Parts: sequence; structure tokens; C-alpha cells
Amino acid sequence: MALIVQKFGGTSVGDVDRIKAVAARVARTHAEGHQVVVVVSAMSGETDRLLGLARAFDANPRGRELDVILSTGEQVTIGLLCMALQSIGAGAMSFTGGQVRILTDSAYNKARIEDIDQHRVRAALDAGNVVVVAGFQGVDADGNITTLGRGGSDTTAVALAAALQADECQIYTDVDGVYTTDPRIVPEARRLDRITYEEMLEMASLGAKVLQIRSVEFASKYQVNLRVLSSFGEGGGTLITTEDNIMEQALISGVTLNRDEAQLTVTGVPDRPGIASGLLGPVADANIEVDMIVQNTGADGATDFTFTVHRNDYERTLDILRDVAPAMGARSIEGDRKIVKVSIVGVGMRSHAGIASRMFRALAAEGVNIRMISTSEIKISVVVDEKYGELAVRTLHDEFELENGAVSA
Amino acid sequence: MALIVQKFGGTSVGDVDRIKAVAARVARTHAEGHQVVVVVSAMSGETDRLLGLARAFDANPRGRELDVILSTGEQVTIGLLCMALQSIGAGAMSFTGGQVRILTDSAYNKARIEDIDQHRVRAALDAGNVVVVAGFQGVDADGNITTLGRGGSDTTAVALAAALQADECQIYTDVDGVYTTDPRIVPEARRLDRITYEEMLEMASLGAKVLQIRSVEFASKYQVNLRVLSSFGEGGGTLITTEDNIMEQALISGVTLNRDEAQLTVTGVPDRPGIASGLLGPVADANIEVDMIVQNTGADGATDFTFTVHRNDYERTLDILRDVAPAMGARSIEGDRKIVKVSIVGVGMRSHAGIASRMFRALAAEGVNIRMISTSEIKISVVVDEKYGELAVRTLHDEFELENGAVSA
Repeated sequence: MALIVQKFGGTSVGDVDRIKAVAARVARTHAEGHQVVVVVSAMSGETDRLLGLARAFDANPRGRELDVILSTGEQVTIGLLCMALQSIGAGAMSFTGGQVRILTDSAYNKARIEDIDQHRVRAALDAGNVVVVAGFQGVDADGNITTLGRGGSDTTAVALAAALQADECQIYTDVDGVYTTDPRIVPEARRLDRITYEEMLEMASLGAKVLQIRSVEFASKYQVNLRVLSSFGEGGGTLITTEDNIMEQALISGVTLNRDEAQLTVTGVPDRPGIASGLLGPVADANIEVDMIVQNTGADGATDFTFTVHRNDYERTLDILRDVAPAMGARSIEGDRKIVKVSIVGVGMRSHAGIASRMFRALAAEGVNIRMISTSEIKISVVVDEKYGELAVRTLHDEFELENGAVSA
Repeated sequence: MALIVQKFGGTSVGDVDRIKAVAARVARTHAEGHQVVVVVSAMSGETDRLLGLARAFDANPRGRELDVILSTGEQVTIGLLCMALQSIGAGAMSFTGGQVRILTDSAYNKARIEDIDQHRVRAALDAGNVVVVAGFQGVDADGNITTLGRGGSDTTAVALAAALQADECQIYTDVDGVYTTDPRIVPEARRLDRITYEEMLEMASLGAKVLQIRSVEFASKYQVNLRVLSSFGEGGGTLITTEDNIMEQALISGVTLNRDEAQLTVTGVPDRPGIASGLLGPVADANIEVDMIVQNTGADGATDFTFTVHRNDYERTLDILRDVAPAMGARSIEGDRKIVKVSIVGVGMRSHAGIASRMFRALAAEGVNIRMISTSEIKISVVVDEKYGELAVRTLHDEFELENGAVSA
């Protein structure tokens, strides 16, 4: 007998029939002899409906009362899912965040979980019930209702799994797992059986939007076995776990493509301390997030400084640079919206030299010009012209034999 | 400075504009220097929408999970009303039943309030806030969400007023007070400034459906000054209070007409112990409520037994009597659906003799034949043919000078 946490998002509980389908799936796991804790979101559309009501009184609703309103979305779902479970003969008991007691800080609308009391959930499980918990919500130390911000139900599920030391935390989504790359670009893309937390974090932040980053961080911190799988189909999905649990580690786990980038370059800045902060400080002050940063100093003592931002922030960033760069003695300001970022991710590269040069060689052989390079311990990213994006992804997927699941051992 | 509880039902908070109107009214009371606790219902239609969702899983939804679902209706309203108050500059803080802590028994869907913790509400009031509380809901000793059943928001308001020793509990409705009789029958009907709890209970149960009976009983028990007034108009409404607070007590406070009755008579039953229980026991067993009961024994030792039931139960009651009456030796079973009950209510009749004969004489003068009579300490009811109902009401309203507010002192 295992203890399994299952999380279903808004689409999975989007109408009466889908709630019945979720109940059937949960009841099956329960009937197999497992203890099951289910975390659910609001029915799709419900949070927007509630936000719409709130906006009638405040164009930018926030604060304590917004959480009082929004938290009702999940509360309706837990009651309905329990009724659905009871109607097919499974004992079920619902809990709001406050009833569990999921203790958070008091940062309304974006609270963070501080502690979870397992007492009541355990008692309900031990009495033979499926326990259904409202995602996305908690209470602060004074009993005020808080919400974790949009998408927070994943975090609720992982935090519950950590507190209960669950054997597995299953996140049901509209995809059936994590793929080596986007199957729309590479039809041979393969679903990964297992992937490490670190790889998943790099993949998620690089564009494979399957899971909330925060929930993966949480799972990593508390070593929760996290499984992504489809609400609608069958199949084992992808298990996100510690490196120790992965017997045959692939050299590279995935290739990602990020199309939302734009590149900016300031050339010929006299090389002296304070260039980076002088250029990027005003950008940060405008709440623009900078992704890759590269600085090269030439023989003439002048520096070329290049960085990328989200494509939507391109014009604003250019305006800021035009304000600040001339006073720093810059020769020119250049920019390009038509670039993309291609990355390979894999813990295997820690123990294998030559991955980077193999990547660059493969791209060169296809005539793909590399404009920027940035590396981390388990990731190598390159910026290339937009028109080469898909070609680069296919080339790298092929080069590292991802369709076969080549292993590094 | 007074402490005032104001309760607004579903129609009063039925849409965004109405919630804004409620906020304006509450803020005005608050700006006058009073402490204000507001109790609200779900927006009209919301409880039915939630019930509809629940019915998709259970044709007859009930139990713990139904209360989890239904209680969200009021929770949305408290958040929205607080936002509306804040948007016009009034400090406001919402509380669910559980957050207040309105402790109830565990009878889901029809729980009864056992205790109210005033601690958090007092603290929020003392900090200068309007406190907005979700009506109709509480929690049991284990923290399970309960609801008080439909219409329970009135009870929440009165119970809070009692716990906080509020100066007044104001119930805003779609009428502007309690009238001496139905103004559709008697255009001269007058709004009562004050009425006693006992009179209100007799009026309510007799057909003047302004307030939940349970909330009046509660107010009476804890001596809460209860005021009924209009959500939409101005005016002082009607204060329901103790007899001590009414300086000039009217002889009669109101005349009521109940059209929902039907009369049944069993004639010629040999007069011996057990007739009443023999006839009415089977009726009660069928969950049919009996209203007036009259028994007359003639010189021949045979008894005529007459009673009234709700008109909807007439046929079923007749069937039951046809089953049981012959074995008791009854001569005949008669019935009439076309009767109504007319009552005069007033604590003044306690100290004034001759009210009943004055009533009967007035009716006789207009040719109204009385078919049954039943009296209590502060009420006299007669059953008359349906066609005489309005005439009887007008005659009595006139006889006791209700349009002038004649007093008994």
C-alpha cells in the first residue's frame, strides 16, 4: 500500500463529466489499496468569473478580500468531487486549505506555504477515505484565508506529498509527460520515463511549460517523487526524481527552443568597472528581466556588451539603452528581435567532457551561425537567428540520439 | 455610538450595483459613528446554481459536502462587499462563519448555532472596521463547515446581535416593515412602528412572511431589538421588541389572512377516550401538519371532530380518514377546501375583555358566517368560507381602528 497524492487542474475538473472521470480514476487507485490524497483546482473559467466580479469594485483587485473570493473556486470543486466519489461508493472527505491547516505567510494573492498540519488528513485517510484538498490556498497564523497565486495548486500537491511523505505526487495535465523536445518540431521526440529535478527546472524555465517551476523546486528540496501524466489518456508519464533514482542516465535529456527572446548589444564601451551595472541597472529598475548576458573585451580596451530580454520588452529596453549608453562612451547600440535560444539540458554533461564542442560542431555542419553562448553546469544555450531555430533543434536532437534514449553510462 | 447589526438578503446583494448600494448604506451608518456588523446572504441565484452543480452527482444532495459547496455563496458576497466598502473609503474586514467562529451542532444542511466567539469580530470593530460576516453558515466542534438551512442568514444576524449585545439588529428586506394587514386587501393598512416578539411570531406563522420565524424566536429569547426595513427605500421600518419597550400598546396589532387551509370534519363519533389520537395519529404519521382542532360533543353522546390542514394535504388527509374513521363508528366524513383562516393578533387582548365578542359581532353584522373558532392568549382565529376572506379582514381592520393606530392604554 502506497500513499499517493494526485493533482488535477482546472481543465481536468472543467465540467460535470470531467469531474466524474477524475472520480473514476481516483477511485481506481483507491480500490487498488492505496491511500489517496487528491488536490484540485477551481473548475476552468471559475477563477476568471470571480476575478470579473471583483473587478467591478476594484480595477486591480488584490489583498485580503480577493483571496476570500478566489478561494471559493477550489472549495466548490472539492465538495463536488467528494460527492462524485461517494456516488460511486468511495468514501471521501474534503478539506479547504484552512481545514487541513496549510499554514502560509500573510502575503495575500501570492502566499508561500510555511507548514502543513498532517493530523486531520491522516485521520481521514486512516478512516478509509479519499481525502480531497483545495489547491492554491491556505491560512495565515491569524486564520486569514490566503492564496498561493495562479498555478499554486501544483505547489499544494507537492507540499502535501512532502508533509505526508507520500510515495509519489502525480500531476495530471493535458500532456502525457515530458518530451525530449517539442514533438511539433521533431516528430521523433520521445517521452522521457525519468528526469532529474535539475533537468526539469532547466527544461521548464527554457520553455517546456508542463509544471510550475516553484513546485519542481519544492519537490527537489523535499525529494518528492513527482510524476507528470495525462488526465485523459493512460500511460506512465514522466517521473521527476533524484539522480540516485535514475539508473541509466542519458547524456542529454532534452533540447529546448525559446522563441520569446530578443538580443541587444552595446559596442565600444570603454572597459572600466561599472559597465554592467551602469547598463543593466536602469533595465532592472524598469522591471525588465534580463536572461543571457555576455561581455567581450577586445584588444583596444573597448568592450562589447550583449544581453537578451523577453521579446515584448525589446522596444522599452532599446529606449533605456539610448538614454544611458551614450554617456558611458558607447560607440553604438544594436538590437535584433529575430533571434531564438536553443539549449541542451542534461546532468550527463557533468561527467562527460566535449559535449559543448560536439554541439557547436553539429550546428556548424548544418550552417547554423551561433551568435551567443552561455553555459551552466547541466545546460548549454546558444542564440541563433530565428530562421535557424527549428533546424538547430532537429540537428541537436539527432546529434545526441535523443530518439533512441542513448545513455551516458 | 451604537453597535448595529445589519442583514442584507440575496436580492439586496443580487448584482454589482446592488452590492454598491448596500455598501453606501452601510458606510453611511458607519460614518455616523456607529460600529457596524453586516451579515449577507449569497447573491440571488447563486445558491440555486451551486445546488444545480451538486445535483449532477446526487439527485438529492445533502450531508457534509453539500455545506462545503453551498457556503461558498456567502463567502463570495462578503469579499465583494468588503471591496465595495474599501472602494468608498470605509475600512472593512470579512469573516466566514468558521472565521468568526460561529459554532454549531453537526447537523449538516440544517445546523443550529450553539455559540459565537466574539473575540475576532470585536477586535476588527475596535480597529475601526466594518465587519462583514457570511450568513447561513458555521462550523462544528471539529471544524467541519455547516449551514443553517435556507433563510438562515436572519438567524446568523440575530445570533451575532445577541452575542455582541448589539443595540439593534436590522433586517433589510423587500418590504418596508410589518403592516397591520395585507395592503393589497386593505389599502388603509398601516406600517407598525413597533410590535412585540409574540405578536410577530403569531403574524409570521399566520402568513405575514417577512422574517424567518426562527430568527424572531431567537431575538425574543435573547431580547434582541429586531428592525425590519427596506433595502431600497428609506424609512424606519418596524421594530420588533419586548413589550416593555412599547409605550402605547395597541389593542390589536394586526389582522392576518391564511388562504392555504382546508377543513375536515368527522361527525358522530361515539364519545370515548382516544378519539383525537385515533383520528389524528395516522394523519401525523403521514407527516401532515394539523393546524386548528375543534371538538364538540352533543347531547346524544356523539362527537363532531373538526380540524384544518394545509390545502395541499387535503386529499391525502381525506383518504386517511376514510381508512380509519369507519372503524371508530363515525357517521360521516366531510371536508371543504374552500375555507380561509382570519386572525386578529395583539398583546392588548390580554388586558382587555370582550375582544372576541366584538370580533364575532363585527363579522356577523357583515353576514360573515363563522365555521370554526380557536383562541390563544394573544390571538383569535376564525375559519370562514373562502369568499368572505377579504371582507372579514376589512371588517376587522376597520372595527379595531387599525388604520389610526388606536391604543389600548
